[in-house]
Amino acid sequence: MSRQNDLGIAETHTVTISPPGGLQLECGESLQAVTIAYETYGKLNRDRTNAVLIVHALSGDAHAAGFHHGDRKPGWWNGFIGPGKAFDTDKYFIMCSNILGGCKGSTGPSSIDPSTGKPYGLRFPLISIGDMVHCQKLLVDHFGIERLLSVAGGSMGGMQVLAWLTRYPGQVRSAIPISTAIRHSPQQIAFNEVGRQAIMADIDWKSGDYYEGPPPARGLSVARMVGHITYMSDISMHDKFGRQRKDCIQPFKFDPDFEVEGYLQYHGENFVKRFDANSYLFITKAMDNFDAGRGKPLHHLLRGIDAKVLVLAFKSDWLYPTYQTKEIARACKLAGIEASYCEIDSTYGHDAFLLEIEEETHLITHFLKKVYNGYEVMTDNAGI
Amino acid sequence: MSRQNDLGIAETHTVTISPPGGLQLECGESLQAVTIAYETYGKLNRDRTNAVLIVHALSGDAHAAGFHHGDRKPGWWNGFIGPGKAFDTDKYFIMCSNILGGCKGSTGPSSIDPSTGKPYGLRFPLISIGDMVHCQKLLVDHFGIERLLSVAGGSMGGMQVLAWLTRYPGQVRSAIPISTAIRHSPQQIAFNEVGRQAIMADIDWKSGDYYEGPPPARGLSVARMVGHITYMSDISMHDKFGRQRKDCIQPFKFDPDFEVEGYLQYHGENFVKRFDANSYLFITKAMDNFDAGRGKPLHHLLRGIDAKVLVLAFKSDWLYPTYQTKEIARACKLAGIEASYCEIDSTYGHDAFLLEIEEETHLITHFLKKVYNGYEVMTDNAGI
Repeated sequence: MSRQNDLGIAETHTVTISPPGGLQLECGESLQAVTIAYETYGKLNRDRTNAVLIVHALSGDAHAAGFHHGDRKPGWWNGFIGPGKAFDTDKYFIMCSNILGGCKGSTGPSSIDPSTGKPYGLRFPLISIGDMVHCQKLLVDHFGIERLLSVAGGSMGGMQVLAWLTRYPGQVRSAIPISTAIRHSPQQIAFNEVGRQAIMADIDWKSGDYYEGPPPARGLSVARMVGHITYMSDISMHDKFGRQRKDCIQPFKFDPDFEVEGYLQYHGENFVKRFDANSYLFITKAMDNFDAGRGKPLHHLLRGIDAKVLVLAFKSDWLYPTYQTKEIARACKLAGIEASYCEIDSTYGHDAFLLEIEEETHLITHFLKKVYNGYEVMTDNAGI
Repeated sequence: MSRQNDLGIAETHTVTISPPGGLQLECGESLQAVTIAYETYGKLNRDRTNAVLIVHALSGDAHAAGFHHGDRKPGWWNGFIGPGKAFDTDKYFIMCSNILGGCKGSTGPSSIDPSTGKPYGLRFPLISIGDMVHCQKLLVDHFGIERLLSVAGGSMGGMQVLAWLTRYPGQVRSAIPISTAIRHSPQQIAFNEVGRQAIMADIDWKSGDYYEGPPPARGLSVARMVGHITYMSDISMHDKFGRQRKDCIQPFKFDPDFEVEGYLQYHGENFVKRFDANSYLFITKAMDNFDAGRGKPLHHLLRGIDAKVLVLAFKSDWLYPTYQTKEIARACKLAGIEASYCEIDSTYGHDAFLLEIEEETHLITHFLKKVYNGYEVMTDNAGI
C-alpha cells in the first residue's frame, strides 16, 4: 500500500485526570485518578465542531493511525484515517484513546495501585463499557469539545459507540457502530469465557499477581488463538490456508502440521508480547456484562436523541452475526432516530471491519459529509 | 424417558488381537498387539448377515447403549439402539468398539507400552482414522462376520464410516455417515489445534508423561469447553441459557456469572474425570490428518462399490456445515453409488446427531430395512 496518504509519524500522549471525588465506576468502586493514553490526527477547528472519536476493540489501543518512530507497521485503522481517507484528517480532528482497563498507557490492572505501590492485578475494579466511555468523555471535555461530530468503532468499539449514544446523547451528532451487538449472546460469552479460563489455568497467572515474574504466556496465547478463529470465517480460512501443510521438518509429533496451526500459534505467541493477560480478563468481562439497553429494550433509551446513526455489518461475520447489528438499526428506527443499515458482502468474517477499507470508506465518507454539512442522511440499502 | 425399550444391563468386553507381524499402522510403525474394548447388543443371526457396526465420535466409547451396573445414565446412543429403535436389536446384531488411541479399554497412549512397562504417552504412534477402522475390521473378523449390514456414526464416527467404505468396500452392504466431512477444513483443524495447545500448555501435561501424577486437568477442561461451544449452535445456546445469570454469590471476580459459563466449566471439569488428555491429542490429530479421498477426489475411491449410503446432516451444524456432508453425497453419486442425502431441520447444532432421535430413527429404520431386505433405497429429499 502506498504511504502517500498516510499521516507520517504519530505519537501517543497521556493525560491524567482526577475528577472531584475520583472516577466513580458503575460497580460502585472508584479510582482516584485515571491516566488516558491518546493520539490525535488532523486539526480541531475554531468552533470545535469537527472532532471524531474513534473507539477501539478488545486488543486495540490509542495508536489508530500513522507510524510510531521506527515502526514499519502503522496504527490499527490506518487505512481509514488520514488525508482523503474515510476519517479525513484534512477536514476532521480525529481522536483515539486506549480504553480504561487496557494495557497501552491507560489505567488498567497492570497500572500501579497508589494504595499499595504495586500493580493492581485482580484488585483492579470490575470496569464496564460505560466506565470506558466515561473516561473518553473526560478526554473530550479536556479538549473543550462540547459535541463530537461522530463516534465510530467496530466490535467492542461498537459497544462503546452505543454507550456514547445512550449516556451522552447531547454530545454526539452522529454514531457509527460496526460489527457489534446490543448485548452478547451466550455463544459470545462462551468464547470469551474459554479465553479467560485458559489464562486462569496457566500456572504463571498466579491469581493475577504475575507482574514480578513471567506472564501467563501460554494461557493468553490460547485465548488469542480462540479469538483468532472467531475473527475469521470458514471461507477466509479456506482462502488463506486451505489444507496446506507447513514446509518444515517436525521433530515433535504435535508441532503444527498445517499452515493454519502455525499461523494461530505465531499470532498467539506474538500477542503475549503486546498484551496483558489481566487486561484480557477485565475487558472481556466488561463486554459480556454490557447491555446497551441496560435491562430495557434499547429503543427506550434512544428516544428523543438527535443523532444520526450508520450501522455497518458484514455478511460472513459469524462472531457478531448480522441479526445483531440489524437489532441496533431497528432500535434506532423504533426510537425515531435517523439510521442507515449497510450490510457489506465480505468473506473476511469479523475481521472485515478492519479490512474492507474501500466499501467502508465509501459509506463513512458520505455519511460524515452529510452530518458535517448538516444534510439529511441517506436511506437504507437493506430492508430491515 | 421410559426405559421400557432399553436394553437393560450392558457390559464392555475386551479382546486382544495380535495379527501376524503386528498391527501395521499407516505412519509406518506397528503395535505388537491391540486390545479392543467392545459391546454388542442383539443376536448375530446364523448367516451372520445382520451385524451393524456403530462407530463413535471423539469422546465416545464402546458403551453405546444399555446401562452399566449401577449407572443411572445409559450409553451415548441409547436412544437409537434397542428393541424397536433405529438400530433394532430385535432384528440386528449391533457392535460398538472403543477406537484405537482411545482411553476406554482399547489400546491408546495411556496403555502400557510392553517395551518399557510404562504408559506410552507421546511414544504412542501417530494413529489414523484408517488404523482405527483396521482395528474394527479385526474385531468384525473375530466375530466371523464377512460382511456388515451397515456401518453408522456421526462426526468422527462418520469419518470412520467413510474409511470403511473405501478400505473394505466388499465388507459393507451399507453406510450411514452423519454430520461429518471428507476432510477437515482449516477452521475445524484450528478448533482442534486450540484444544491441543490448551492441553500442552498445562504444566501438568509434562510432555505426556503425567500418568504418575495429576493429569493436565485445566488444559483438558479448556479444550473440552472449546469443543462444547462448537457442538452447540447460537440458537441452541440462546434457548438453553439466554443471558441468565447464575443464582449464587460470587466470592471471586472471574467466577462464572452467566449460566453458560457455569455449564461450560462444569462439563469441562467433568470431562477430565473420564478422558485422557493424550488420547485427546492423538485422536484430534487423526481427525485433522484424515482425508477420505487420500489426496484424490473421493469419488475415485468409491467407484464400483456395491453399497448403499445414507448421508444425514443438520441445518444448524456449523462445526460440520452441510456443504461438507453434501460433498459426501455428491461423491457417492459421481461414483455411481446409490446414496440419499437428508438434511434435518434442527436447531441443536452439531449435537443434533445425538439428540434428533425421532427424525433420525425414521430415516435410519427405513434405510436399514430396505438394505436388509435387499430392496432399493429411497430417493433424495434434497436436490444436490
